Amino acid sequence: MNRVSKLFQPINKIPKSATIKHKEITSKSQRLMLDLGIIKLASPGTFHLLPLGVRALEKLKSFIDKEMHKINAQKLALPALTQAELWEKSGRLNNSAELFTVTDRHKNLYILSPTHEEAITDLLASIAPLSYKNFPLRLYQITSKYRDEMKTRFGLMRGRQFLMKDLYTFDIDMKNAEQTYSEVIKGYENIFNTIGIDFNQVLAATGNIGGLISHEFHYTADVGEDKLLFCLNCNYKGNVEVSGMDYCPQCKSNKIMVKNGIEVAHTFLLGDKYSKPLNATYLDRNGLTANLQMGCYGLGISRLLGAAVEVLSLEQELRWPLILAPYKVVIISPKAGSKEEAFTLGFDQELYDNIDQLDGYAGNVLLDDRNHLTIGKRHLEARRMGYPYVIVIGSKATGSTPLYEINEIVTNKQHLLDRNELLQYFRSIQ
Amino acid sequence: MNRVSKLFQPINKIPKSATIKHKEITSKSQRLMLDLGIIKLASPGTFHLLPLGVRALEKLKSFIDKEMHKINAQKLALPALTQAELWEKSGRLNNSAELFTVTDRHKNLYILSPTHEEAITDLLASIAPLSYKNFPLRLYQITSKYRDEMKTRFGLMRGRQFLMKDLYTFDIDMKNAEQTYSEVIKGYENIFNTIGIDFNQVLAATGNIGGLISHEFHYTADVGEDKLLFCLNCNYKGNVEVSGMDYCPQCKSNKIMVKNGIEVAHTFLLGDKYSKPLNATYLDRNGLTANLQMGCYGLGISRLLGAAVEVLSLEQELRWPLILAPYKVVIISPKAGSKEEAFTLGFDQELYDNIDQLDGYAGNVLLDDRNHLTIGKRHLEARRMGYPYVIVIGSKATGSTPLYEINEIVTNKQHLLDRNELLQYFRSIQ
Repeated sequence: MNRVSKLFQPINKIPKSATIKHKEITSKSQRLMLDLGIIKLASPGTFHLLPLGVRALEKLKSFIDKEMHKINAQKLALPALTQAELWEKSGRLNNSAELFTVTDRHKNLYILSPTHEEAITDLLASIAPLSYKNFPLRLYQITSKYRDEMKTRFGLMRGRQFLMKDLYTFDIDMKNAEQTYSEVIKGYENIFNTIGIDFNQVLAATGNIGGLISHEFHYTADVGEDKLLFCLNCNYKGNVEVSGMDYCPQCKSNKIMVKNGIEVAHTFLLGDKYSKPLNATYLDRNGLTANLQMGCYGLGISRLLGAAVEVLSLEQELRWPLILAPYKVVIISPKAGSKEEAFTLGFDQELYDNIDQLDGYAGNVLLDDRNHLTIGKRHLEARRMGYPYVIVIGSKATGSTPLYEINEIVTNKQHLLDRNELLQYFRSIQ
Repeated sequence: MNRVSKLFQPINKIPKSATIKHKEITSKSQRLMLDLGIIKLASPGTFHLLPLGVRALEKLKSFIDKEMHKINAQKLALPALTQAELWEKSGRLNNSAELFTVTDRHKNLYILSPTHEEAITDLLASIAPLSYKNFPLRLYQITSKYRDEMKTRFGLMRGRQFLMKDLYTFDIDMKNAEQTYSEVIKGYENIFNTIGIDFNQVLAATGNIGGLISHEFHYTADVGEDKLLFCLNCNYKGNVEVSGMDYCPQCKSNKIMVKNGIEVAHTFLLGDKYSKPLNATYLDRNGLTANLQMGCYGLGISRLLGAAVEVLSLEQELRWPLILAPYKVVIISPKAGSKEEAFTLGFDQELYDNIDQLDGYAGNVLLDDRNHLTIGKRHLEARRMGYPYVIVIGSKATGSTPLYEINEIVTNKQHLLDRNELLQYFRSIQ
């Protein structure tokens, strides 16, 4: 049984102003995540994920795994350390200001990888040439990446160690690579639709990664570090890096809007930018070797978590996308010594078990058993934590047909339901 | 549907001797894992985990998560980068030859952590003093660790980047810390019993980690780098590091046996070795602060996978513990153009769906649909891969009541069963 009294969740009791030791925590949601014991700053730009933070992140990882499976992507895991010579071959070694490097005892240079285009292309090259029959091939991983940021800030949104899902695709020609690109984009749209926060897919610059076409997925938010141009005339959307800020590059209209965006995903149609220098080839129908055509598709796992919470949260209260909330349901039992306690003995545990057994709720119920605190205080804390559903066992639970108070935190609705109605309610919202 | 034809599994077709480019791969199982496309060497001591390797590893991770939950341990995730100053405080910075270090753009020194005693103790210190009521506290993570090994070897068993489960426990006094220590040891015994390979829990040296008591869990194997002493007189078991190799340190008998062991887990009762210099305190019943008493408990996730496969495998065939096999069941459909194919059209997919729907089998069935290959060749390959159950749709499947050939790879038993019997069989072995 998951009990709040046992949860390792070191809530900051120090006055808020004093908790912002590091000037990098300049967003409301990240300050809340720190204050509420969900993450903790370890060093500038690196964070301890505490149990609630890990739960949210693992939900996101497993959701992304399922979505990757749907687009026939296979999971692998490449080491964080990549031989620097691979980055020399691609020309990126001296071209990347934010690389952490590591020298081993034999004086060999490695990079602490921010991304793995070189590593995975080398992997494909080392088993080349595979037959054209083996393609398309879609390979992804969810691993920690590293970037020696000049300015770490916004908590999980711009750290020096972060969790990223990176997908790499390999096709036999550009036509197939383009088809793959549009299939992955559809997969991404599905991901962002399911998370349920308004997002914008915009035309983007290819930058250091390179390639032919590139798109970014953004959440709009004040703390967003990118500027996005929206054309009100032709619906064009682009990062201003690629389109300027004065008029729409597509229809030339000046009826435009510029908003701040947090980049949560980035897709690139790479062509042979990596496969050529690293020699990743395949054998075509005629037995001739040719370079593979690639795409790469990043999705910031820890950044998406931080950005989603940033977009949804109130000034003093966290809010999560439903599928990422660390727990779905919190049950608040009566205060010790109250009349309610005497009349509802054991109701909390029964309710816990009933809900926990419903499809999709196993492990997602939390009992706030800190009965020395008032119901009001625990209710307020559950709201601050943003748990989607808060059940209060209050005075209405003492009648001959006990009624429970269900609070929908996002909509602010309240329901008074008996046990069966309550279980039916949770079944129906799943 | 999981199909062998779509699986990214670059089987080495080069003669075996030539594939051992790196002299570090000196064990039969690791050579098999490389040859069969389960792992791939990225640089000395670092490996790409290919899809089958990731599947096995993720099964182990999720199994360990469940076992940690049973002993009330909560999961968190600490960054790989740890500020070097914390290791200065504990005295380990200049005392650890195998540290990878990283310097950031501001000239701050970090270590690429091989273990996290300092980091987690600092985390506890930063929120100290918690009340005595908050303890015992058990916190663990499953993350990549790093070690600049002098000699990388034995594949996943001694790499420079490896996946480790590390648990840290905090208690208010030594009596409670000892109680915790024995509870965790029981949890470990449960883990190793479930995996099902004979293991030895031995008295161990505390070494660089330090502390008061230490035990190791070993699999015995020729490639094991530790020597273990077994007393045939009093049943004492110890690493020779702590006990010498001449006679039993407990009963002084010379009826002893020495075997090679692969260390797969290591437990330490630490006391205040870290909590004192790093100032991790709590508030006792009388309102006084005192140092926390700690334990730490490592379990090598990637090493355990490598070691388990090493112990179980044959010279030319991989074997997995049942709970770690990348897939449980492989279905081999008839060869294209055969009489069997004509009479059993669609049987393979129906069988796949039926088994996939059984409790515990979802996602664990694989269809070998490379029908241009003979059944015999695919059967042989499935054996080499060590998939626990291989179903052949052969000539017996063409009768009025189709019979399927189920091969238990580990026991070498064969069953001829109709559809219902087959499903009952898989239900019963779950």
